[in-house]
Amino acid sequence: MSNVLVFGHKNPDTDTITSALVYAYLKQQIGVDAEAVRLGELNNETAYALEKFGFDAPRLIEKATPEAQQVILVDHNERQQSVADIEEVQVLEVIDHHRIANFETADPLYYRAEPVGCTATILNKIFKEKNVEVPANYAGLMLSAIISDTLLFKSPTCTEEDVQAAKELAEKANVNAEEYGLAMLKAGADLSDKTLEDLLSLDAKEFAMGDHKVVIAQVNAVDINDVLDRQEELEKLLEKEVQDKELDLFFFVVTDILNNDSVAVPVGKVADKAAPAFRSVLENNRIVLKGVVSRKKQIVPTLTEVLG
Amino acid sequence: MSNVLVFGHKNPDTDTITSALVYAYLKQQIGVDAEAVRLGELNNETAYALEKFGFDAPRLIEKATPEAQQVILVDHNERQQSVADIEEVQVLEVIDHHRIANFETADPLYYRAEPVGCTATILNKIFKEKNVEVPANYAGLMLSAIISDTLLFKSPTCTEEDVQAAKELAEKANVNAEEYGLAMLKAGADLSDKTLEDLLSLDAKEFAMGDHKVVIAQVNAVDINDVLDRQEELEKLLEKEVQDKELDLFFFVVTDILNNDSVAVPVGKVADKAAPAFRSVLENNRIVLKGVVSRKKQIVPTLTEVLG
Repeated sequence: MSNVLVFGHKNPDTDTITSALVYAYLKQQIGVDAEAVRLGELNNETAYALEKFGFDAPRLIEKATPEAQQVILVDHNERQQSVADIEEVQVLEVIDHHRIANFETADPLYYRAEPVGCTATILNKIFKEKNVEVPANYAGLMLSAIISDTLLFKSPTCTEEDVQAAKELAEKANVNAEEYGLAMLKAGADLSDKTLEDLLSLDAKEFAMGDHKVVIAQVNAVDINDVLDRQEELEKLLEKEVQDKELDLFFFVVTDILNNDSVAVPVGKVADKAAPAFRSVLENNRIVLKGVVSRKKQIVPTLTEVLG
Repeated sequence: MSNVLVFGHKNPDTDTITSALVYAYLKQQIGVDAEAVRLGELNNETAYALEKFGFDAPRLIEKATPEAQQVILVDHNERQQSVADIEEVQVLEVIDHHRIANFETADPLYYRAEPVGCTATILNKIFKEKNVEVPANYAGLMLSAIISDTLLFKSPTCTEEDVQAAKELAEKANVNAEEYGLAMLKAGADLSDKTLEDLLSLDAKEFAMGDHKVVIAQVNAVDINDVLDRQEELEKLLEKEVQDKELDLFFFVVTDILNNDSVAVPVGKVADKAAPAFRSVLENNRIVLKGVVSRKKQIVPTLTEVLG
């Protein structure tokens, strides 16, 4: 009998990778033959976190079948963000903190979504509910996920529950959350080994908004000009993506992790709708997004309102 | 500021009505201005349970707006089973035990689904998680919901968690679950004051299965011939419903609550696909469904497989 695969979304980030590892561990403790896997390459931030707490990267898969018929999704639910053959497997569980869309099952399942900043915060509760102790190294992974998703507690997605969970987990992992967190975010914002092509897919997610097909990519940077100095070349690549994938909008966002602002470069046939949606202006084909750092809470709902 | 409305599905059953009352009570205890409402008439079983534990029926609504902008769904998620203006309100939470389909939000939310027999079983856990005591009369409502959804623990949807929750709740409510349960089920199976038109809508739910629009209605009976003796008249009404609502299938099920079997009468252009799906035969335009009592676990997945 094949095991149950646990995975997060494509173009994995720290919450997606660590939540797969952490939840697979928890399921194993309660007798489920679960294995964490991943749907794409690790980013530098996640690699830093895994290294710090002594973990290898989960195995890369292209498809869940034929090796597994049953899966558990963490940190996502929308089918276009999931494994290629998601329609062919049974989703046993979902643990997530995003909106629900493009998700459907034939059978009842365990679905646990909470409007918190990070999947790890929900997992921390489930450990308690199941009376399983979080080992120090797994606590370190969960702390990394919360720091990553909340940009060190500065994102508007960050809730009091995330802050409390991070405090508990930092203690268990025996690390200073602020110091470790900044080092981890900086490792992730180190773009020196990345091509522009890399940046486009590093943290890109696809969304259906009404009849529009939209990709939103987000890159963290210490100096956003590292990316924006190459805007001309970037736009050519975005246009090619729009054509190849028949997108209505590619919304490329660079986030300044020290000042917590972002700049977006919109490309596609509905690109002109983006700036007014954010009550901003398009200048030099850039939109300055003051105080915007969260795709989930600040970008997706705003674009959904004008395109959905 | 308007309050938060809490409601279950159209054509309400005991779990839907009581879970709205119980969860609204729980939310009130933790400071939320929540009100339980209902989307349709009470059935005899639910009326019996409310009377027994001293509750009035929740207020009937047609639409959530303009009085409320925010809602909590219990015991359902599919939009065609929900309030007419579901697209115009924000769904803050869902507490459910069904498959997920035709459900979409713009924002993250609290979504709690578990593959157990009854919403009340999940609510019983949430009371514990929130450290709120279940009062005796609310325990009685929750026990009624579990007995109703599991047909006194005999449905294949019934899990060990449902049995345990019912035990706890029966003790709190100070009733004998078996005795009270049978009396409640019999009150619900008393069809003497019902017209055939009533029976069609009493517990009817609509489903999208692939491109097919399907309604499955289920009626509990002590003697199924009370209904089947009027099959000719019944089929005429079913045919009218199929025409009026442009259905591909109306699957009318009478369940024998003492022997735990059912008989279905299928009407619609894909009616001939139903009997083979259940490995049964169509005879006298009836399909005998041996051991089938659960729409959710035995009927919906089987029909979805051939129509979806």
